[in-house]
Order: sequence, then structure tokens, then C-alpha cells
Amino acid sequence: MRITRLEGLCDGVFAVALTLLVLDLPAPKGSQALARDLLQQWPSYAAYVVSFATVAIVWMNHHALMDRVARADRGLLELNLLLLLFVALVPWPTSLAAQYLRDPRQAGVAAATYGMTMAALSGSFSGIWLYLQRRENLAHPSARPRLGGALRRALTGVVAYLFGVALAFAWAPAAFAVYALVAMYFAISGRRAASSTSIRDHNQISDEPV
Amino acid sequence: MRITRLEGLCDGVFAVALTLLVLDLPAPKGSQALARDLLQQWPSYAAYVVSFATVAIVWMNHHALMDRVARADRGLLELNLLLLLFVALVPWPTSLAAQYLRDPRQAGVAAATYGMTMAALSGSFSGIWLYLQRRENLAHPSARPRLGGALRRALTGVVAYLFGVALAFAWAPAAFAVYALVAMYFAISGRRAASSTSIRDHNQISDEPV
Amino acid sequence: MRITRLEGLCDGVFAVALTLLVLDLPAPKGSQALARDLLQQWPSYAAYVVSFATVAIVWMNHHALMDRVARADRGLLELNLLLLLFVALVPWPTSLAAQYLRDPRQAGVAAATYGMTMAALSGSFSGIWLYLQRRENLAHPSARPRLGGALRRALTGVVAYLFGVALAFAWAPAAFAVYALVAMYFAISGRRAASSTSIRDHNQISDEPV
Amino acid sequence: MRITRLEGLCDGVFAVALTLLVLDLPAPKGSQALARDLLQQWPSYAAYVVSFATVAIVWMNHHALMDRVARADRGLLELNLLLLLFVALVPWPTSLAAQYLRDPRQAGVAAATYGMTMAALSGSFSGIWLYLQRRENLAHPSARPRLGGALRRALTGVVAYLFGVALAFAWAPAAFAVYALVAMYFAISGRRAASSTSIRDHNQISDEPV
Repeated sequence: MRITRLEGLCDGVFAVALTLLVLDLPAPKGSQALARDLLQQWPSYAAYVVSFATVAIVWMNHHALMDRVARADRGLLELNLLLLLFVALVPWPTSLAAQYLRDPRQAGVAAATYGMTMAALSGSFSGIWLYLQRRENLAHPSARPRLGGALRRALTGVVAYLFGVALAFAWAPAAFAVYALVAMYFAISGRRAASSTSIRDHNQISDEPV
Repeated sequence: MRITRLEGLCDGVFAVALTLLVLDLPAPKGSQALARDLLQQWPSYAAYVVSFATVAIVWMNHHALMDRVARADRGLLELNLLLLLFVALVPWPTSLAAQYLRDPRQAGVAAATYGMTMAALSGSFSGIWLYLQRRENLAHPSARPRLGGALRRALTGVVAYLFGVALAFAWAPAAFAVYALVAMYFAISGRRAASSTSIRDHNQISDEPV
Repeated sequence: MRITRLEGLCDGVFAVALTLLVLDLPAPKGSQALARDLLQQWPSYAAYVVSFATVAIVWMNHHALMDRVARADRGLLELNLLLLLFVALVPWPTSLAAQYLRDPRQAGVAAATYGMTMAALSGSFSGIWLYLQRRENLAHPSARPRLGGALRRALTGVVAYLFGVALAFAWAPAAFAVYALVAMYFAISGRRAASSTSIRDHNQISDEPV
Repeated sequence: MRITRLEGLCDGVFAVALTLLVLDLPAPKGSQALARDLLQQWPSYAAYVVSFATVAIVWMNHHALMDRVARADRGLLELNLLLLLFVALVPWPTSLAAQYLRDPRQAGVAAATYGMTMAALSGSFSGIWLYLQRRENLAHPSARPRLGGALRRALTGVVAYLFGVALAFAWAPAAFAVYALVAMYFAISGRRAASSTSIRDHNQISDEPV
């Protein structure tokens, strides 16, 4: 298995998942007051932005991960496909959240479904880091000391999402606030990890270009 | 025809087919008991997971196949496009299976449709191996002794899926059990085949990294 | 503009267009006689196969085209995007054809719409060959003598599709027979053209591997 | 971060967004006068063509941009993902415009929504050029003198789209005329910028091939 073709499939699934989110934005039919109807569906826009940002951040972190991989074996491949299963799933809880965010009795279940999907996504991410830690020779030598930190960050995400799921049944908006905070946490911690230069070739991220 | 561009199209179709499966997951509208309504549609989740896993396994085995190809001619190209026709079709029988799995009178037809699609997919896979066996100079020299085994595994899949189709009319759940077993068979036999290293470049799968 | 990135976008649009065709395959809801209902929608399956085959053949011929291009300028880029506009459109007339093939009064309009889309697709293909013929230094030196033949084949397609459109208003099934014949003509003439080896690298199509 | 993988994701999102536009083309159900019904939905065709052309032009200009980038840092990556958020959004205002273009009371809101999406898209494009201007060492040395002109063109787009939004509430068709003019402006100014050869490799656009 060449790593580039694995990346090709991953990027394809990420790109389609990002773009399919737009299908959950409703275009009201036969509206007599379009401005009002468009404003009323603000939860759909919020859900679009949060889900797009989350998938985009997962993509950035997946990139950082692949830059640390020197070789892939079948197990790593299967864990990557498990991750893609949850990435491709994101439009579904997004659609639920957009529809039920303003119905107080159902919002909790929608928020919990969203959080469980994201916890599973973070969980499969953690699984990849754990696998790399156990089979250290799959990782680039220079990346090995940092595997522990990456695993810890991914597990933090799982715990935070599960905390959000628990909150969801008490008060749904608080759960979504937690999900947004987790996304910001991953964006920021990913930024820090990226500032340590990657290995694989010369077109790298460099936060401090000379 | 450069092989890399053929792989690009294939990976694109696989990525879109994997991600379109999510469109068959229903988000109940105006539900008054969302938790119950979500749980009731469990066949949709099962169908999503089985179809995602099946397409993902086909993708992994397609990869292993392409790693064994040294050159492509027009016939090989056309057989690949026939394979893609059935890969792109998978969301359709998946949607049928999800909808009719719990209706005893229609489940047989849905299960048979699913199995026939998968048999055709395995059949076109067999066709590619058979073609490579007949035009051995398209395959990498080191891969030639193993073409017979690969063809036999693919044909086993066709026979097993057709057996599932026959079962479907007797008892639909048994047919789906057969389909799940076939997917597991391909995942495991693909793992074994992958442990024999591939040829094309240095970023290979290696089940026993040194 | 690097040619590889143009090919990346083209392959993406082709892959998505091929896979979106499945969205036009109806999964009957709440059917009481699923086998009968599935058989009754045979025009949808025929439309899926014909459209998939047509787009796949266009992709193969587009490949052969790109193998003959040495350099791209902005005009060639814009003509390629025009071609993609019609490739991305294919699922729409396919859906019309599937729905109205059995309604004698509307089948003519549906068949004509299908044929006009395909004529426009062939027309933009012809435009690319014409452009290459006029700016011969964009083409690989060894490909230049063959540009005339390629242009003639593409224009034959335009004429044949327009003939089909004219037939559509007399008898719709005859128009679809013409469209199927044109697809076969392109598949066969593309096969012949492919037997003259391509230039760009070593992983080529070769119809007569030694 | 390797630039090629960023381009892969971008091309994927562009390809899917271009192809999803077809889902907004309605195929009338059970029509008794298909020709008339198809002609009546001309705003949908106009919206398809304008949106396809706009996204295609954005893709061409994004290409020209990436050819000027020597290195990417995390900030550039995030600005690119922001751009993709608006690219992926385009099918939604397109669908609104197609539906409400002929309803005089709602057309203004639909046209304004379209214009605001495009202004945001141009705005995030401007953001990338501004970022490159501030961190000049990310750009190819030969591209640095031209960053100012590129930024000015992108900002012109933002202003023109906002002018269209203002017009929309007075007379919607005028707003759409402005949007079409902006697309033509970008196509033409992009053509000029492209005639200055790009840097990154030998398969370049050259408007004046020797």
C-alpha cells in the first residue's frame, strides 16, 4: 500500500463529507416571507459552520498524523478506514442538530447523538495514535517522542465529547458549547503541534518562515 | 493511460460512494419522541456499517490488485470501469435493505437485490484477475505466481453471494449473515495477501515492520 | 497551470458525476410488492447503465486527449471547464429519460433533452481538438498528425447526437438506440486510437503488450 | 503540510461543489407538458451556468494563487479552509436564486443572499492575498511584486458584490447582472495574470507558446 493512495482516498472522503454538509441547508419552498424564513433557520447555519470547522480541523490533524507515518501496514489502513466511517457520518448528526436544536424536548437526544458521533471519531483517532505508539517503527524516528502527547490530546477529546453527551440530557445548548470548545481546543493544540516542523518533504508547514 | 490517473478516478468513485451512503440515513422529521424514532431505524445503521465496510474492503483489495499491475491496456481499463459501475451502485441496494429489512414479505427481495449487486461486483473483480492471468505480461513478474489464488478468492465471493441470494427467498436475515461473513472472509484473506510485500514503491504495507 | 492539477479537477468531476447517477435510481417507499415495483422501473436501470457508460467513455477519451497535450494555456483550460459543465450535467437528462421513457407523449422531449446535452458535450470536446489543431505547439509533436482524425471523430458524435434529437420527436426509442450506438462508436474508435501508444510516461496503455 | 495534499483537498471540494449544482436542476414529476415545464424553469439553468462559471473561475484563480506559494504555514492553511467553506456553500444560494428569481417580492432577498455568499468568498480570497503580502517569504520571490495587484483585484470583487447586494433590494435582476459582470471581470483579469508565466514546474500555462 502506497501512503499516497491512502491519502488520496482520505482526502476524497473529507472533501465529499465537507461538501455534502450543504445538502442539509434547507431552501424554503414557496416562501411568502423569504427573509424571515431564512433567518428562522439559523440553527442550520450554526450547524453547518460547526460541522465544517470540525471536519476541517480533523483533516488538518489527520495530515499532521500522516506526516509522522513512515510506513503503513494493514492494521493502520483499517484504523484509517474506521476513522473515515465516522467522518462520512458527520452530515447525519449535523442534520439532526439543525432540525431539533429549538425543540426543547428533543434537543437533548439530537445533541447527544452529535456528541457520540464525535466521540467515536476522536476515539478512532486515538486508536491510530495508540497503534503507532505500539508499533513505533511505523513512525518517523523524529516523531516517536511526541506520540504520547498526541495520544493524550486525542483521548482528551473523547472524554470532553462524552462529557458533552452527559450534559446534553440536562441542557442541550451547554452540550453544543462544549463541542465548540473541543473544536477550538483541537485547532489550537494542532497549531502548536504543527509548529514543530514535519518530516516528509520540503513543502512543509513552517509557522516561522525565515 | 498512466496508471496513476486510473487510480485517481477509482479512488474518487470509492470516496464518493462511501460518503453517499450517509444520504440513506434518515433524519426523522418533526419527531415527538426522537430517541425512540432513532432507535427504531437500526436497520439503517446496520446497512450503513455493512456497506461501508464492504466498499472499504473492496477498495483495499483493489489497491492490492493495482500494486500487482505493471502496465494497463484498454481492456483492463474497461474492466475497471465495469467494477466502478457496481461500486457506485452500492448505495441503492443498501437503501432498499435498510427500508425493507423489517418487512417479512419484502425483505427477501431486498436481500436478493443486495446480494446480486455484490455478486456482480465480485464478478467484475474476478474478471480483472482472469484478464491479468491471460495477459500475464501486464502483471509484475513477481506477482504472476499468485494470480491463480487471487482469482480463486474472487470467484469464491461470487459463489457465496449467489448462495446468499438463494437463501434470501427462504429467510432474509440468513442472507445478510452470509453477506457479513463474505465481507469478513475478504478482509481476512486480503490481510494474508497483503503480508506478501507489494512491489511498486518504497511506501509499502509491511505487516512485520523490522 | 500544472497539467496534473487540471487532471485532478477533471477526474474529481467525472468521479462525482458517475457516482451521483445512483441518486436517480428510485428505492420505492412502502412497497407491498417490491419485486414487481423494482422490475417496473427498468428504464431507470437502462438510463443508469447508458449514462455511466457514456461518461466513462468520455473519461477514457479525455485521458487520451490529455496524453497528447504537452502544454496548457488559459484557453485550453477554459474549454476543459466547459466540457466539465456538460459532464456534471449528465445526471439531469438521465433522470428525465428514466422518468418519461414509458410515457409516449413526453418521451420525445426527454429523449431530445438527453441528446442535446450529449451533443453539447461532444461539441465542447470537438472545440478542444480544434483548439489544439490551431495551436499545434500545445500538442506533443508525435500527436500532431493525428489531431485531424480525432476532431473528425468528435464532430461525427455531434452530428449523430443531433440526428438522434431529430428522431426523438418521431419515435423516442429510436433516438435512444442512436445514443447507444454513438457510445459504442466512441468506445470502439477510442480503442483503436489507444492502440497507438501514448507519450507522456512509461505506465502507458499498450494494446499489444510484448 | 505538503502543498500537494492541500491542493488535493481543495480540488476535491471544488469538484464536488461543481457537480452538486446539478442536484438543484429540477426534473418535473408526472408532467403532462414536459417541453413547457422544462422551458418554464429557465432560471434554474441560468443559475446553474452562472454558479458553475463562478466556481470554475474561482478554481482557476485559486490555482494561480497556489502557483505563487512557495511554502504554507498553518495560518495559510486555515484561510484556505475558510475559502472552501464558502465554495462548498455555493449550491445553496444558487438553489434560492433559481426558485425565487421570478417571484418579484422574494427575488430581492434571494439575490442578496447570493451576493453576500459571493462577497464572503471574495473576502476570504482577499484574506489569503493579504496574508501572503504580510508574510512575503511564503510567496515565490518572483511573485512578490505582484501580490499587491492580486489583492486589489480580490477586494474589487468584494466591493462589487456588496454593491450588487445593495442593488438587490431595489431591483433583483440588476443584482444578477452585476454578479455576471464580476464573474467576467475575474475571468478576464485572471487571463491577464496567467499570461505572466507561473513558477512551480514545467507544465505551465503559457498564453503565448513559442
